[in-house]
Amino acid sequence: MHLKDKNPGKLFVLSGPSGAGKGTICKRLLEEMEDLSLSVSMTTRAPREGETEGVSYFFTDRETFEKHIQGGNLLEHAQVYGNYYGTPKEPVIQKLSAGTDVILEIDMQGALKVKENYPDGVFIFILPPSMAELRKRLTGRGTETAEAIELRLGETLKELSYIDKYDYCVVNGVLEEAVARVRAIVVAEHSKVAFTAEELIASYKEEE
Amino acid sequence: MHLKDKNPGKLFVLSGPSGAGKGTICKRLLEEMEDLSLSVSMTTRAPREGETEGVSYFFTDRETFEKHIQGGNLLEHAQVYGNYYGTPKEPVIQKLSAGTDVILEIDMQGALKVKENYPDGVFIFILPPSMAELRKRLTGRGTETAEAIELRLGETLKELSYIDKYDYCVVNGVLEEAVARVRAIVVAEHSKVAFTAEELIASYKEEE
Repeated sequence: MHLKDKNPGKLFVLSGPSGAGKGTICKRLLEEMEDLSLSVSMTTRAPREGETEGVSYFFTDRETFEKHIQGGNLLEHAQVYGNYYGTPKEPVIQKLSAGTDVILEIDMQGALKVKENYPDGVFIFILPPSMAELRKRLTGRGTETAEAIELRLGETLKELSYIDKYDYCVVNGVLEEAVARVRAIVVAEHSKVAFTAEELIASYKEEE
Repeated sequence: MHLKDKNPGKLFVLSGPSGAGKGTICKRLLEEMEDLSLSVSMTTRAPREGETEGVSYFFTDRETFEKHIQGGNLLEHAQVYGNYYGTPKEPVIQKLSAGTDVILEIDMQGALKVKENYPDGVFIFILPPSMAELRKRLTGRGTETAEAIELRLGETLKELSYIDKYDYCVVNGVLEEAVARVRAIVVAEHSKVAFTAEELIASYKEEE
């Protein structure tokens, strides 16, 4: 199905608490949907084995990264364990102009910064079906202590009060359903009058 | 797929020029989607053979119809060839409260009146892929003269300038695609934060 005609792409920002499954949903969408491209982050951390420049990350040094910050070239950035991570604006804008949708998977703090810098994005909050299920998923990963998990759950409850900054929320109980819902959001967004009607009308009028 | 949890239904108004295919799309959606119900019109014209009260139409007399108009009980109404036609508000509101989505297929004038009376509706404009294709479809029906068809096409061009009163527009070139798009709009609307988030958040907070 053609999602768009001559229209530019849209930026879809998938966000939500750790354990909600935004990464899995994002991966599935990229597999299933044509004309959808992942936003590649920039980082100052060293490449790991198997990571490819421009695919896994754009790798760079601190000096260059800080110049990008000062130049306003990043949609958002943060420091994690002494390394910079950020979303370069230019590759996103290029893809959108070429008519490709871009998907960005990011935590809530990052999503809110992206919204400041690119309010035309579509902001989707991915939620777990319940706090009990989120606890189960985080425990199941086996990567964090019980205390750390409780901290995360507390964080999640706080994050929920920012949900009205988002356009959509999707509960990820059954993965297939959550993926289908996000796909539906992408299709619906491309059918919005504000997004698509102007060119359409022009084409009808030209024709007559 | 569950489109909603404990939320009320939504009113989806399908509108657009004659020949765009809104009736066919509407029929297909009703066949395919659970929890979607057709809005039944009220009319003063006599029932035809095979028509059922409350299914095809609510049949009534002029006096009662005019009381409904005065009482503000209709989302819209119009007179066609001396008969009244209108959309009773009460059955729509009842279905929405019970969590059922309602679909209403109507011409543009009617849709704009519904919008005045029920701005929470989702307004979808169904468009033909081109004016040439619309002319072909109307001619193919064989029910109107060439002059009447040209009048309709002129009407359609005028109607296009009201498209910004709608939320979505869907081009009906390939029926399957148009149906899939309207389905996607229904799913997406049920994922809107404004529509669904409040109860969700309450349930998480209650749980913890």
